[in-house]
Amino acid sequence: MSSPLQLPTYDDVAAAARRLSGHAHRTPVLRSRTADALLGAQLYFKCENFQRMGAFKFRGAFNALSEFTPAQRKTGVLAFSSGNHAQAIALSARILDMPAAILMPLDAPAAKLAATRGYGAQVITYDRFAEDRQAIGERLAAERGMTLIPPYDHPDVLAGQGTAAKELFDDVGELDHLFVCLGGGGLLSGSALAARALAPRCKIYGVEPEAGNDGQQSFRSGEIVHIDTPKTIADGAQTQFLGQYTFAIIRRDVDDILTATDDQLIVAMRFFAERMKMLVEPTGCLGFAGARHCGVPLQGARVGVIISGGNVDMARFAQLLGS
Amino acid sequence: MSSPLQLPTYDDVAAAARRLSGHAHRTPVLRSRTADALLGAQLYFKCENFQRMGAFKFRGAFNALSEFTPAQRKTGVLAFSSGNHAQAIALSARILDMPAAILMPLDAPAAKLAATRGYGAQVITYDRFAEDRQAIGERLAAERGMTLIPPYDHPDVLAGQGTAAKELFDDVGELDHLFVCLGGGGLLSGSALAARALAPRCKIYGVEPEAGNDGQQSFRSGEIVHIDTPKTIADGAQTQFLGQYTFAIIRRDVDDILTATDDQLIVAMRFFAERMKMLVEPTGCLGFAGARHCGVPLQGARVGVIISGGNVDMARFAQLLGS
Repeated sequence: MSSPLQLPTYDDVAAAARRLSGHAHRTPVLRSRTADALLGAQLYFKCENFQRMGAFKFRGAFNALSEFTPAQRKTGVLAFSSGNHAQAIALSARILDMPAAILMPLDAPAAKLAATRGYGAQVITYDRFAEDRQAIGERLAAERGMTLIPPYDHPDVLAGQGTAAKELFDDVGELDHLFVCLGGGGLLSGSALAARALAPRCKIYGVEPEAGNDGQQSFRSGEIVHIDTPKTIADGAQTQFLGQYTFAIIRRDVDDILTATDDQLIVAMRFFAERMKMLVEPTGCLGFAGARHCGVPLQGARVGVIISGGNVDMARFAQLLGS
Repeated sequence: MSSPLQLPTYDDVAAAARRLSGHAHRTPVLRSRTADALLGAQLYFKCENFQRMGAFKFRGAFNALSEFTPAQRKTGVLAFSSGNHAQAIALSARILDMPAAILMPLDAPAAKLAATRGYGAQVITYDRFAEDRQAIGERLAAERGMTLIPPYDHPDVLAGQGTAAKELFDDVGELDHLFVCLGGGGLLSGSALAARALAPRCKIYGVEPEAGNDGQQSFRSGEIVHIDTPKTIADGAQTQFLGQYTFAIIRRDVDDILTATDDQLIVAMRFFAERMKMLVEPTGCLGFAGARHCGVPLQGARVGVIISGGNVDMARFAQLLGS
C-alpha cells in the first residue's frame, strides 16, 4: 500500500537549510555537567529558544514562504495562530517582502497581538466563541487570493523544522537518543527526517503533555486520534490532533511517544533557568522532562534534546516558578 | 620607566586557552536583530552566563590552579569570596583534585554557601563585622601551607579571563568596539590583552556601576582610587579598587571607562530575558548598558559585548524585573 501523500524527505530538509542560511540563527548546542550527572548521560541541548522570534517555528514558516511563486508572493500569506506560528509567519513575510494576514482570537494576549503587528503583519481578530476561524480564513484567502500556511501539517513547514535537528547532528555527530517536543508534529517529523538520514541508529522520541496525549494514542493505535483541547501549561502543545503529513512520518520514523506532566515541565523550566541560565517556555521543556522522567535507560548514552522555544512572558515565568 | 610588575601578555592568554580546552565551555556568541536595530550596529554577545558555574570566573580560577606546582597542589588553594570566585575556585580545585578552603562571611546567602560546599570546598565562615578576613586568611594559609588566589589581581587569573575575548575574536573576527563589565578589572584587562593581539584597532571600554566608579576615577587620574563599597545591584562589581596588575594593563590598553546606572542594568536584564531568552546577573548587564547608553557612536559598527555571568537567584530576578 502506498501512501496517498507525497511525503517530504531529507533532501527537502537539506534544501530548507540552504534557504534558511543567513536568515535563521544557527542556534548553539549547550552542555550542562549538572544535567549530565543527573541523567548519567551526555546531553546536547539544541537551543531553539535562541532562534529568531524565540522559537523553531521561524524555520518552517520561512522555508514555506520561500517556496511561494511570484504570484503567491504578490498576494501574500494567511495564517491562523495565537502563538509562535503567527510571529514566525509575520517575520518571514516581512523578510521576504510579502503581505501577511494573521487571524488571531480577540482575547489573545495583548503582547502577542502587538508582537505580531510589530513584525508588520495585518492582524485580524475574531471572536473564538462566536465565529469559525476556518470559515473566516477560507473567505479571506478566497477574497484576497492569499495562500494559507498551516502551523505544522505542510511539507515545507515540517522540512524547515527539520533543519534544527540537522544542525544538531552536523555539530555533534551521531547520537543514541533524541527527545523532541510534540504538539502537531512539525518539529518531530522534521527531526525524524534529519535523524534517519544523519544518525540512522538514533532513537527518536516525541514528548507531549500528559494531559494531551493524542500523539501517543495515535502512535499506538495507528490512526490519528482527536482529543479536546488539553489543559496544560505547555500552550504550544495544546494541539488536538496530529497532521496527515506529520503523523505519516512519525509513525514510520519515530521510536516512541512519551508524556510529561506539568509538574515535570516546571522542574525542567527551573533547571534551565537556575543551572543553564536560560528561559525556556513550558512547551520547550517537554524534551528534557521526557528524557529525565520517562524511564528510557540513558546511562552512558549521547542524548540530544531539542528545546523548542523561549516565549514565556516574565510575569508568567515568575508565577510558574513560584518566585 | 619600566613597571615593577611583570605583566602578563597575550601569550599567557593563549596558554590559558590551551589549559582550559576540554574543561571550560566554549560559550556561544549570540546575535539579536532587535539589539542591532536598537543600536544601529551589529552586536556580538559573548555569553559567559553559559560558562561552567555560570560565570567567566571559572576561566581565571582554573588557569591559576593549573599552574600550581606539585607541592602547591598537595596543600591546595585558599580564597576569600562570597561570590562567583568562590565557586570558580571550588570547582577548579575539584577538577584538579586539590584541597580548597573558601573564607566566606557568616551572613553570605545560604545558596552560595551550599553551592560552594557542593563543589567540595571547605567553607570557613567568619563574622565580617568582628573579624578581619585578611588576617584569618593569612593565618590559615601559613598554618596549612595553602596558596591564596585572589579574585582578580593575579597574572594567571587575568590571563585566564582573557580567553573569553580570545574566543570571541576567534569566532567573529575583528570588531570595532568591545564593551566589558568592570569590577576589579580581571575580565577587562584579560580582554584587553586579547584584543590588542587579535583586533588591534578595536576600541575597548570597561563599564562599571555609576555608584562605584573607582575604575573611571583611577583611569582618569592615573592612580588607583579607593572608594567605599558602592551600593549597586551589580554585586559582582562592588569592588573598592582596581588591582596593581589589572590597572597597569587597563591604563595601557583600554580606551575608556564608562558607567551604567542600576536602572540601565535592569533595562538590559529585561532585554536579555524577554528578547534573548537568557538570564544575566546585574553585573553581567554592564557591557550592554554601556554600549546602549554611554553615547559612544556605534552606527554601522561591529560591536562585541561580554556578558560576564548569570548567577542571579530566581526570586531576586523576578523582584528586579518587577514581575
